[in-house]
Amino acid sequence: MLTACATPDLVSEITLQPVRRHGVDAAILFSDIVVPLHAIGIDLDIVANVGPIIASPIRTSGDLASLRALEPDDVSYVAEAVGNAVSALGDTPLIGFAGAPFTLASYLVEGGPSRTLERTKALMYAEPATWHALLAALARLTLTFLEVQVRAGASAVQLFDSWVGALSAADYREYVVPHTAAVLSGLAGYHVPRIHFGIGTGELLGLMGGSGVEVVGVDWRVPLGTAAERVGPARALQGNLDPAVLLAPWAVVEREVRRVLSEATAVEGHVFNLGHGVLPSTDPGVLTRVVDLVHSASQAGGAAPAADVPSPGS
Amino acid sequence: MLTACATPDLVSEITLQPVRRHGVDAAILFSDIVVPLHAIGIDLDIVANVGPIIASPIRTSGDLASLRALEPDDVSYVAEAVGNAVSALGDTPLIGFAGAPFTLASYLVEGGPSRTLERTKALMYAEPATWHALLAALARLTLTFLEVQVRAGASAVQLFDSWVGALSAADYREYVVPHTAAVLSGLAGYHVPRIHFGIGTGELLGLMGGSGVEVVGVDWRVPLGTAAERVGPARALQGNLDPAVLLAPWAVVEREVRRVLSEATAVEGHVFNLGHGVLPSTDPGVLTRVVDLVHSASQAGGAAPAADVPSPGS
Repeated sequence: MLTACATPDLVSEITLQPVRRHGVDAAILFSDIVVPLHAIGIDLDIVANVGPIIASPIRTSGDLASLRALEPDDVSYVAEAVGNAVSALGDTPLIGFAGAPFTLASYLVEGGPSRTLERTKALMYAEPATWHALLAALARLTLTFLEVQVRAGASAVQLFDSWVGALSAADYREYVVPHTAAVLSGLAGYHVPRIHFGIGTGELLGLMGGSGVEVVGVDWRVPLGTAAERVGPARALQGNLDPAVLLAPWAVVEREVRRVLSEATAVEGHVFNLGHGVLPSTDPGVLTRVVDLVHSASQAGGAAPAADVPSPGS
Repeated sequence: MLTACATPDLVSEITLQPVRRHGVDAAILFSDIVVPLHAIGIDLDIVANVGPIIASPIRTSGDLASLRALEPDDVSYVAEAVGNAVSALGDTPLIGFAGAPFTLASYLVEGGPSRTLERTKALMYAEPATWHALLAALARLTLTFLEVQVRAGASAVQLFDSWVGALSAADYREYVVPHTAAVLSGLAGYHVPRIHFGIGTGELLGLMGGSGVEVVGVDWRVPLGTAAERVGPARALQGNLDPAVLLAPWAVVEREVRRVLSEATAVEGHVFNLGHGVLPSTDPGVLTRVVDLVHSASQAGGAAPAADVPSPGS
């Protein structure tokens, strides 16, 4: 995985595949959340069916020394892959990709995936100064990683905070928002739409919508109308079909896709998507049919989904 | 684990330990969600650091034949353990315990723990008749399991739907609520308080509060005031300290316990508890201090926590 992420021809090839095969309206950079950590020399491996494993977890202020700054040259292969993909995509936009500081920190502190994130939270509560220094360093790294992608031609960015739904809103506001906002506000001058996503973030949507984004991704747990109330005005939503629905017979898939599109008519802007990643057991043919259905339903409704996103900086 | 759960002396001993050591206001039956499945002959094992593994998962209507009814005699050791514990507890109440139909079904269908519950959801969407037959059978089994405990002397029950937070409210209403409500309404005649709990259930609290319960357990993601609005009137709340807080220094623990107690003053009734199970890395001495703090703060506030629960059947 890490080798693939560092091989520009492979990255651009994999990035293009969903556009070629399914006709989606945008490509998203093929990458992994830990790529910029690997690029600054953090000793890590992505283990099949487990996730990223960090050789020397970061748990004290002394451990922070292992986090050097990311320089654009550290990820020149990403810039090259983005450039190649953008050229091949023509009018189809490429969305850049990065993990958010909290989720990166959770891997570094836990040493790998964790169901409870207990070491992460313990550090956050016990040593807030170390925690904020860690998140600030990861915010700078993430900003640089996304700037490289935008300068190479990405026309939007998506910031993934996969595990931040483990926090209460009070803790999210205190321990995470300043750092996420630093990444997102750092991108303001590029005038590209900023998408921010996490799972299980129903109670955090208002804070996520206020962190300097044009689009908030929501999972299937929160209906789009409810999500729009929490996110607030002048923000589009992305989502929110449950990926498990794609394992059902087509009649169920079609009913659920139409339900999401119907709920989306009540929100200010909507990017149709799943509420989380495609499950590996999904039949790719179903994905193609879903894209076709969304396109035909959107044309019937008079609006192309990709045109509904508020202007960046507005 | 399964051997321990089937050995009355061990069960009552472990059930009594938190009362003896920490002075909590009630004991909860030491058990495991899969005990009644094991009791009807489902071939399963509880694997350390993994969870329950089912030898022959249930995925078709034909597989339902392996689910025979639970007879009280199948779990006579549970009745004996409850009786022993109730005698030893004196005036301290014992709370009975069972897993809810959805969570039991998720283990049976997946064959073990699953991060995505994709096979469970696929069965639910693809074969609703099989799904409802499965949940109806599990509801009967759960009701019998809790009736055994109440008849043996349990003075409250807690129904755990650990993984139901993976569903949207619409799916929860259609595929789960009728079966959970069958269990809870089946207990109405016993006039014992019914507690219902799941994690990540922020969007489901209104439906959970309407399913025939006196108390809804909430995790730390939803502030108690917000939870009370969603659950509705005449229901108490249980929770909701993040178990990870107990890994922090005492000053943080105390601040967070007092915050929960302060938020609880705005709700109709409150049972102080963690928002999920105690993490194995927790210092037991901290648990004792938390119990003492809750008791002293509640006495200062003029209300004993255990007295705040609405009367069953009201």
